[in-house]
Amino acid sequence: MIPDLKYDDKGLIPAIVQDIKNGDILMMAYMNRISLEMTLETGFTHFWSRSRQKYWKKGETSGHVQEVKEILYDCDEDTLLVKVVQHGPGACHTGNRTCFYRSIQK
Amino acid sequence: MIPDLKYDDKGLIPAIVQDIKNGDILMMAYMNRISLEMTLETGFTHFWSRSRQKYWKKGETSGHVQEVKEILYDCDEDTLLVKVVQHGPGACHTGNRTCFYRSIQK
Repeated sequence: MIPDLKYDDKGLIPAIVQDIKNGDILMMAYMNRISLEMTLETGFTHFWSRSRQKYWKKGETSGHVQEVKEILYDCDEDTLLVKVVQHGPGACHTGNRTCFYRSIQK
Repeated sequence: MIPDLKYDDKGLIPAIVQDIKNGDILMMAYMNRISLEMTLETGFTHFWSRSRQKYWKKGETSGHVQEVKEILYDCDEDTLLVKVVQHGPGACHTGNRTCFYRSIQK
């Protein structure tokens, strides 16, 4: 059952995607109520694309899908943490395994 | 040097906070340009509180500060990942070590 979650003024909630095998953060994207339901129903991550204004199943064209193992929500009920098995070489469209491949130096 | 980042229409960027020791996601909060600078300057996480509309140093009253070890940003330059050493028992105001202590069941 989906708990009461706090969606933002656009109906979105950020979803952090974590590799369940090694704990790496793969990406962050946004879900709405329906894409969360799609994720729960299918067992694969689905998001709402803010730039394209449409639903997308992660890896639908590349095959690099994310198999959902656990979905957590935080104390404020306004952020999701999705633990997945990442299929294929990685999550990032750049070819990197994770979208967080650059660091900020002081 | 801080790279060009994409702040939202309120000047904020989500910052995922990860325990560098075990990879656990501790919390997510929002930074603006200045709180990111405060974080880089001091070596401890600083955020912008959307509810209180003010800057806050994490753990300022509780002592449960977060010592910053690395800050990464994603391919879209619109999300930060901050790897920290969490001081004290944990990050969550509920007393839990992490804010993500509840799961969603289908």
